[in-house]
Amino acid sequence: MSIIADPVTEETLSAREARQPSSKVAFFGEDEPLRLDGGRTLSPFHIAYETYGELNADKSNAIYVCHALTGDQYAASPNPVTGKPGWWSSLIGPGKPVDTDRFFVVSSNVIGSCMGSTGPASVDLRTGLPYALDLPVLTIGDMVRAQAMLIDRLGIDQLFAVIGGSMGGMQVLQWTVAYPERVFAALPIATGARHSSQNIAFHEVGRQAVMADPDWRGGHYLQHGTRPHKGLAVARMAAHVTYLSQAALHRKFGRNLQDRDRLGFGFEADFQIESYLRHQGMTFVDRFDANAYLYLTRAMDYFDIAAEHGGRLADAFRGARTRFCLVSFSSDWLFPTQESRAVVHALNANAASVSFVEIATDKGHDAFLLDEPEFTGAVQGFLSSAAKARGLL
Amino acid sequence: MSIIADPVTEETLSAREARQPSSKVAFFGEDEPLRLDGGRTLSPFHIAYETYGELNADKSNAIYVCHALTGDQYAASPNPVTGKPGWWSSLIGPGKPVDTDRFFVVSSNVIGSCMGSTGPASVDLRTGLPYALDLPVLTIGDMVRAQAMLIDRLGIDQLFAVIGGSMGGMQVLQWTVAYPERVFAALPIATGARHSSQNIAFHEVGRQAVMADPDWRGGHYLQHGTRPHKGLAVARMAAHVTYLSQAALHRKFGRNLQDRDRLGFGFEADFQIESYLRHQGMTFVDRFDANAYLYLTRAMDYFDIAAEHGGRLADAFRGARTRFCLVSFSSDWLFPTQESRAVVHALNANAASVSFVEIATDKGHDAFLLDEPEFTGAVQGFLSSAAKARGLL
Repeated sequence: MSIIADPVTEETLSAREARQPSSKVAFFGEDEPLRLDGGRTLSPFHIAYETYGELNADKSNAIYVCHALTGDQYAASPNPVTGKPGWWSSLIGPGKPVDTDRFFVVSSNVIGSCMGSTGPASVDLRTGLPYALDLPVLTIGDMVRAQAMLIDRLGIDQLFAVIGGSMGGMQVLQWTVAYPERVFAALPIATGARHSSQNIAFHEVGRQAVMADPDWRGGHYLQHGTRPHKGLAVARMAAHVTYLSQAALHRKFGRNLQDRDRLGFGFEADFQIESYLRHQGMTFVDRFDANAYLYLTRAMDYFDIAAEHGGRLADAFRGARTRFCLVSFSSDWLFPTQESRAVVHALNANAASVSFVEIATDKGHDAFLLDEPEFTGAVQGFLSSAAKARGLL
Repeated sequence: MSIIADPVTEETLSAREARQPSSKVAFFGEDEPLRLDGGRTLSPFHIAYETYGELNADKSNAIYVCHALTGDQYAASPNPVTGKPGWWSSLIGPGKPVDTDRFFVVSSNVIGSCMGSTGPASVDLRTGLPYALDLPVLTIGDMVRAQAMLIDRLGIDQLFAVIGGSMGGMQVLQWTVAYPERVFAALPIATGARHSSQNIAFHEVGRQAVMADPDWRGGHYLQHGTRPHKGLAVARMAAHVTYLSQAALHRKFGRNLQDRDRLGFGFEADFQIESYLRHQGMTFVDRFDANAYLYLTRAMDYFDIAAEHGGRLADAFRGARTRFCLVSFSSDWLFPTQESRAVVHALNANAASVSFVEIATDKGHDAFLLDEPEFTGAVQGFLSSAAKARGLL
């Protein structure tokens, strides 16, 4: 099932947004514009989100879950597009580490994305056409500013916790820097305080792959009824390799052949890793908007907390009272442990409350999405102890 | 200057091959077919090559230099296409580690490539059109078999040494396995006895990028006067990131901006790494044929010495009398040191003469092309000692 496989016109776009089967949507009208880091504003805009569990009487048990680059609001409920379980259903649910019997979980689609929040495929009311590249370039700061407006709307002053991995972890860090008094506990996972040169490089490869596809049409593919499926699939394939470790690829695929007897001496997929990647690319284009991919990779590339604080990361966390638990994975080469350590050092320089766990695994960056007992145990332990400190018994 | 920028017809193709300004070309007619690992034969075919220095009277001082994926025969003389110095001119020349005052150096363009040897852009005499994908898929074994026919033609029984990095290193290993008695000394650099799953994955991304370009035309772009420049540029960009280390990218580019004052909040190249990659992509397409890129990446992916020896690498080197020196670079994540070590262990199991040097550098895989004193020193030392053992004084 695909909600974006057909040529999409203005009409079907609006229909698509309305069609998000289960999402709540918060609309922010022209009286509530979103101020953007690039100097412009976004207005009107809307945020699609899911909630799990119940908000308690004094609104002190809310946990904000931030998703990664191609994630969505369906953290703990089935994704209506793919039919798959929520992407963090190993972590979130009744009796799970993020226990929805105790906590009220909010999970929203970031602005700039394509699962119901305002993004480049949304209709620009000034023109009646999809924004395409006329949507202002967004930052992680912009995403989090929009999220803060959502929790205002929900009447929540302080979040008990903010949690997320990869681009989600960037949002967690941004929350603690932009709204330190609104975050009691923070769990930035498999992330860093800035995007590295190598990561920017891989993102740029992906963007160029999308923009090289003639069906991209300078970004105006929705109007033309085309889709840059081939370019976006190549972008996804390149990115997907970076989410896995050399060891995981070797263990999972090695040099195993599709046809176990022999090489094909052609350019079809001979090796299982080739079929796997092609499949990853092909299924991705059914669920993701190409321009949204450009916007979100750009937001990650722009992320650099220290740069916004005179070049000193420690200054960003001055007086931090949030409790932190950073998690990295030993085989993650996209956000290697040293990136988490740099944040830990900056927090230590401010005598902040911080714990740090490096999980030994060969599963690479994607490990934060997997059911790794050591990882889920660390999340559970940190949240339990923070809940006690917060008086959430 | 570009020799492949214009639409190429059968006529201009022949003209192009004839035009290779300085290369010697060895032609092998229908009486000398090249037997291929895939079961077919290639005939007629030709090999473009360069030589440096003089062959001595007993023909015992020849060194075969094998090039990497996008290399060519211009190892120590200016490349007529790019105008740049030979790609290994830091290593090869009078008084240099590969001393052309002492040694006779042969450097050929591999078959399947596009710098004068038979490849997918060559004319298939059966049709009068470029081979495109009708050229049989080639292997590293096929390349080396052709090279052996070239040294037969030159009247050389035994090579004093074979040397090469990356795909060139694969050829070196293949030489020692296929023609052990014809190689006195071998220098496989930054390479391995098989291509890893991760490396196959990155190659597949590149091939898909080329084939996604509508100007590729199912491989028949030469006939149609188009070129898949965009797809090939994306492939090159993705590959280029893997040739550098995280540390080298950080040192060289970090998050430096093109316009040092501010982010552009658009999709132009903001970061220097983006401009650098785009430049790498754009200049590559002027000098390289897209189908050749498909064929050569495929050859590397197929490479697996152990698989051809019952799965045991040690069995491939049984009775080896060649002297080996393996070189790896500490920050090379495409061919990490462990890949060289696996070859060393296999040679040790055969009590072969083997030395192994891991060069400490942050320059990644590309270090083998750079003028790294520790590296050039190791090459010089090994060749000198081997020359003494060979009685070349």
